[in-house]
Parts: sequence; structure tokens; C-alpha cells
Amino acid sequence: MGWGVIEKHGSRLSFIGCGVVNSAGDDLAERLLSLHHGLTEVLRAYAPETAAVEQTFVNKDAVATLKLGQARGIALLVPAQFGLGVAEYAPNKVKKTVVGVGHASKDQIKHMVKMQLPSADVSKADAADALAIAICHAHHHTYAAMTLARTGS
Amino acid sequence: MGWGVIEKHGSRLSFIGCGVVNSAGDDLAERLLSLHHGLTEVLRAYAPETAAVEQTFVNKDAVATLKLGQARGIALLVPAQFGLGVAEYAPNKVKKTVVGVGHASKDQIKHMVKMQLPSADVSKADAADALAIAICHAHHHTYAAMTLARTGS
Repeated sequence: MGWGVIEKHGSRLSFIGCGVVNSAGDDLAERLLSLHHGLTEVLRAYAPETAAVEQTFVNKDAVATLKLGQARGIALLVPAQFGLGVAEYAPNKVKKTVVGVGHASKDQIKHMVKMQLPSADVSKADAADALAIAICHAHHHTYAAMTLARTGS
Repeated sequence: MGWGVIEKHGSRLSFIGCGVVNSAGDDLAERLLSLHHGLTEVLRAYAPETAAVEQTFVNKDAVATLKLGQARGIALLVPAQFGLGVAEYAPNKVKKTVVGVGHASKDQIKHMVKMQLPSADVSKADAADALAIAICHAHHHTYAAMTLARTGS
């Protein structure tokens, strides 16, 4: 699961941090617990003021949707445990805000994130996507700083 | 979401508690947080030694599956946060263990749970289902006590 933290000063955005939290463990509950630990560490380290999570794409694969839902439950829970409001944005809205069109490739997203946050490491697609959600949240929200977690592949 | 706690002494099962945790709040993250609080209270109150969660039925409705997945993520997380192993049982396995057949009605499940745990209040279907999962877990597991949470309707 990718995460990204940015800061907003007026209309200026700056990169703070990004990365990927991987789940580890033998069974599902353990993997969700490790995800919870990882995201909790990010929230503790960066103490953001607001959060956003991507509205998961619901496809025809019910098993994948259930899996995504379980991880997404944790992604929504952790910022709420820190008392943050959690915004949700559809992937198309994120792309439209960051790239200008609703259907953009992963490479286009990386490129536009890098343009707006030159010091960001966008080598990991999930982290770049999380930063794109942060940028989208910054444009649609008035808070000063934000974090976000996104259910990655 | 229903929950049930039973105790196992040898082959004898006894009812400890059951109920339903309801989620409350304006947005999804808040509702998941309230679910987390409710289940944490149950685990704190009963200090079970092992846990089980029903393997969610995956139907054709992707939106419902995602919603179920999000709640299920919390149901799996909470016992893991208490250091418990979390078993998963398919609904058919639960029904086969408790009722004797894989396809049983809600009323049959209530009836058989009441037969095996006479002091249980099975008026709420989700709580009765949770106790059925507990009974199933008791039959397939060697621990002395157990709890379980089930994603209800």
C-alpha cells in the first residue's frame, strides 16, 4: 500500500515523504495487523492534519474486491484512530486533478507528480499514486498538510 | 456485526456472551473506527484465547463485497491486535458442523445454537451466527475458549 505526505502553503505544495507499506505474515489477520502497524508508524512520524484514500476501483473479480476491501478498511481506520477526517476520491478525479484528464497512464501520473513535487521519489507506482491523491486532496481541501494511503496492487 | 463467546471444557461447550456491534458515524472511516472500538471492547471484556471469523460470502454485487471486505478487515485486525490467531470458516462448514447440513436456514441455525448453548440469547441472527462460528471453531480447534466476530448484514 502506497502512502505520500505533502505540505501546502497557500497554493504551493511541497514534498514531505512517500513510500510503500508492505504486509507480512502467514495468515490474513497477521497481514492486516502488519499493515496497521506500518500505517500507524507513518501517521506517528508525520502527524498529518488530514487524510485521503482513493475510492477503490471495483472490478468484476469478487475475490480481489474483497481483498482490496479488507486492506482498505485498515487504510481508512488508521487515520480515523488519529482523529483525522478521511476524504475519498475516485481514481478519475485524482487523474483529472493531477494530469488534466480522467484516463491517464501510470507514467503520466508519475510525470505530473514529479513536475509538482520535484524532490519526490516516484519510482514506486503506489507511492506516486498516493502523492497524486495528496495533490488532489490539496486542491479540493483547505487544510495545511495531508497524508494518504492507497491500496496498491 | 455479530459476536459470540463460548467456553470449552473437554467436549462440553458453555455460553459466555454474545451480541451485535453496530457501527455509527457520518463517514466510512468513522463507522469503521466505531466498529473497531466495539470489537476491542468485546475482546477486552472477555479476553478470549482464540478467534474465528466467517469466510465472507462473495456474491456478484461488487459494491456490497467491498463494503463487507472493509468491515471484515476490522474484524480480522482486532483479535490479531490482541495476539490471537484468527481462524476462518466457510459458511457451509459452519452450517455442516452446527446443523449437520451445508445449507441451513437462519432459523435452523438459531435452533441448533440454542440446543447446544441453552442459556444463549439467539434473538439476533448475527449474534446466533457468531455463536455458530464459535461452535464450529470449538469442534475444529483444541483451545479452551474462543470468540468470534462475523460481518452481519
